[in-house]
Amino acid sequence: MSTFGLIEYQDANPEVKAVYDDILTTRKTDYINNFWKAIAHDPSLLKRTWESLKAIMAPGALDPLTKELLYIAVSVTNNCQYCIASHTTSAFSKGMTQEMFKELQQVIGMANATNKLVTGYQVAVDQRFQPPLNPPK
Amino acid sequence: MSTFGLIEYQDANPEVKAVYDDILTTRKTDYINNFWKAIAHDPSLLKRTWESLKAIMAPGALDPLTKELLYIAVSVTNNCQYCIASHTTSAFSKGMTQEMFKELQQVIGMANATNKLVTGYQVAVDQRFQPPLNPPK
Amino acid sequence: MSTFGLIEYQDANPEVKAVYDDILTTRKTDYINNFWKAIAHDPSLLKRTWESLKAIMAPGALDPLTKELLYIAVSVTNNCQYCIASHTTSAFSKGMTQEMFKELQQVIGMANATNKLVTGYQVAVDQRFQPPLNPPK
Amino acid sequence: MSTFGLIEYQDANPEVKAVYDDILTTRKTDYINNFWKAIAHDPSLLKRTWESLKAIMAPGALDPLTKELLYIAVSVTNNCQYCIASHTTSAFSKGMTQEMFKELQQVIGMANATNKLVTGYQVAVDQRFQPPLNPPK
Amino acid sequence: MSTFGLIEYQDANPEVKAVYDDILTTRKTDYINNFWKAIAHDPSLLKRTWESLKAIMAPGALDPLTKELLYIAVSVTNNCQYCIASHTTSAFSKGMTQEMFKELQQVIGMANATNKLVTGYQVAVDQRFQPPLNPPK
Amino acid sequence: MSTFGLIEYQDANPEVKAVYDDILTTRKTDYINNFWKAIAHDPSLLKRTWESLKAIMAPGALDPLTKELLYIAVSVTNNCQYCIASHTTSAFSKGMTQEMFKELQQVIGMANATNKLVTGYQVAVDQRFQPPLNPPK
Repeated sequence: MSTFGLIEYQDANPEVKAVYDDILTTRKTDYINNFWKAIAHDPSLLKRTWESLKAIMAPGALDPLTKELLYIAVSVTNNCQYCIASHTTSAFSKGMTQEMFKELQQVIGMANATNKLVTGYQVAVDQRFQPPLNPPK
Repeated sequence: MSTFGLIEYQDANPEVKAVYDDILTTRKTDYINNFWKAIAHDPSLLKRTWESLKAIMAPGALDPLTKELLYIAVSVTNNCQYCIASHTTSAFSKGMTQEMFKELQQVIGMANATNKLVTGYQVAVDQRFQPPLNPPK
Repeated sequence: MSTFGLIEYQDANPEVKAVYDDILTTRKTDYINNFWKAIAHDPSLLKRTWESLKAIMAPGALDPLTKELLYIAVSVTNNCQYCIASHTTSAFSKGMTQEMFKELQQVIGMANATNKLVTGYQVAVDQRFQPPLNPPK
Repeated sequence: MSTFGLIEYQDANPEVKAVYDDILTTRKTDYINNFWKAIAHDPSLLKRTWESLKAIMAPGALDPLTKELLYIAVSVTNNCQYCIASHTTSAFSKGMTQEMFKELQQVIGMANATNKLVTGYQVAVDQRFQPPLNPPK
Repeated sequence: MSTFGLIEYQDANPEVKAVYDDILTTRKTDYINNFWKAIAHDPSLLKRTWESLKAIMAPGALDPLTKELLYIAVSVTNNCQYCIASHTTSAFSKGMTQEMFKELQQVIGMANATNKLVTGYQVAVDQRFQPPLNPPK
Repeated sequence: MSTFGLIEYQDANPEVKAVYDDILTTRKTDYINNFWKAIAHDPSLLKRTWESLKAIMAPGALDPLTKELLYIAVSVTNNCQYCIASHTTSAFSKGMTQEMFKELQQVIGMANATNKLVTGYQVAVDQRFQPPLNPPK
């Protein structure tokens, strides 16, 4: 189920168990998904990845659901099946409706198409789009 | 500035001019960017692309700014410089703040990292994430 | 102009010069493009790459122009600017018309879009599409 | 078999059924493949995608088989398994021989290799390859 | 198990059998993996691919294990499951330890993240990083 | 030179300056490259990225030069020009010779080619390559 198998909660060492506990508490769930159980073979990676993810996906200038939609957009573009499956499930649990899912997929499909049309037609960047930009903070 | 050069408004045939006019009206601007002037060499592509984009990026279950953020996420993942420059500019004009931009980039970076960790560790999809899903409409 | 600069004809060692000569003869040109001058720093790579390319792009079950179109489709999808510029030029010299170029870009854009729609909707492969297939030789 | 399951012909609403009917007629088949049944949950996406695909893949300056080969080249480069399986099957049904398939894969492999050699050696685009180009229409 | 099925040793023609024999001898194994049996339908591709791979992966300025690690890094970034599975197995057989595997995945994850942060922030290349470079041979 | 311009040392706030100082000390250099100056607009991203990078690229089971080679392999596959330029420069400063560079590029090119051949031929993973694996620690 992963290169070195999955480390279940009861088999985890204290360092790993502490991360698992934080996942369970933060996500208000009783389920640790395979990704964490796979990278738990590398506790420092597990800890750093979880702490970064927790910080990045928290509410901020963007809300958590918008961040899930962005995660899906990246994962579809990268063709990462695990990530698509897990973040689509997660987005639904955070309030994504079927209508939102459909518009999300439309945008992803369209963006991938125009990305390639721009590239194939070798279009130069307009002067006015070139950085630096000076938007409101 | 593109494979066949750019078609300026005054040089456009009526079919192309009609699309240009719709872009100017819909976007409330007096500027047509290079992408449209490049693909205007193929009027049917121009028309279909613009009409699809107009429909897809319109307000719906997702708001137009969220759709711009998704466009940027796809474009960065695909490494499309033109698209990043144009949609970043566009997102700022639609209300993206610097704080939103920063969180957006954090999510994109994180998603690209975990996409590859999942892949490199060959993690199987959890049973509960496998489709079909049955979310609220 | 490349990591180690470009090796011009007059500065090339005999092994490199022999490949350059074969390029000039095979392509009926007096011009060696930058790619070859860049990888000429690694004569074994130069030789192997040129010989493979010459064999693969030669007329066969697919004609040389179709092969150039395929090269462009891959290069656009990979976003390789050098490759797009050089193979687009090459395809025009081998008979690609503007109409063919336009249809090519349409197919590339469409394929990139549907690739992502299939992926985002997590569509399973139909039984009848699964290999092995048994087509005519 | 897809995020929301597949919509079979008998369960389709009239808008979806009309698209299914057009697919069956245009392709002279009695089979609707999973992709369409998956995106049928979004009838506007289904309709727009099918109409664009029908227009783009029709005979034109490029013949339908060449377009299928291009679709495969994009799909392999994007690593889209569904698309590879379906378009390879489709290409065989449109006349791709085993010899053509083999040359196709050789070109895709070669293009992906040289795309990366150009990139890794940081080769600048030759002056003569830079757009705009002025090919015959 | 592949588009045209797999060609087993006993069913191989002499040209294919010669390559199989060289694989078995070079790798000191009695096992031919599916990749070779799949592309054996195209003996010229089989021969060219094997001979290139044998030359490239041989000990040189980089040792064979480092080359396997690089192969994994490319394969993960491309999301090629077959390649990840086969080269991870191969790297372990050549001496990759679990610690090395873990650091490898950390580097791959990090590189994919910063690749996208650089791209999303539209960072221009520093003057001092621009080629040509003049390193020791 | 980046979306929001570059933050120079003398203009940096204390949080950013502390990271800059650590970069200068750790790398034994007097130069901060554009990447850090660009993401310094987001001090938390700057700090997290630098600390992760410092930890990941430090000597361990893999030596720092091998890690630079892996970084280049990922960056070339992702076509990230900034990353290729900076990490190629960095690898030369850490002892990469021209011969090592050449073999590196050969492996990257070859891996990208075979990644696509495997994919295009739809090759199934051999039973013996499937995880979990049980390598020495």
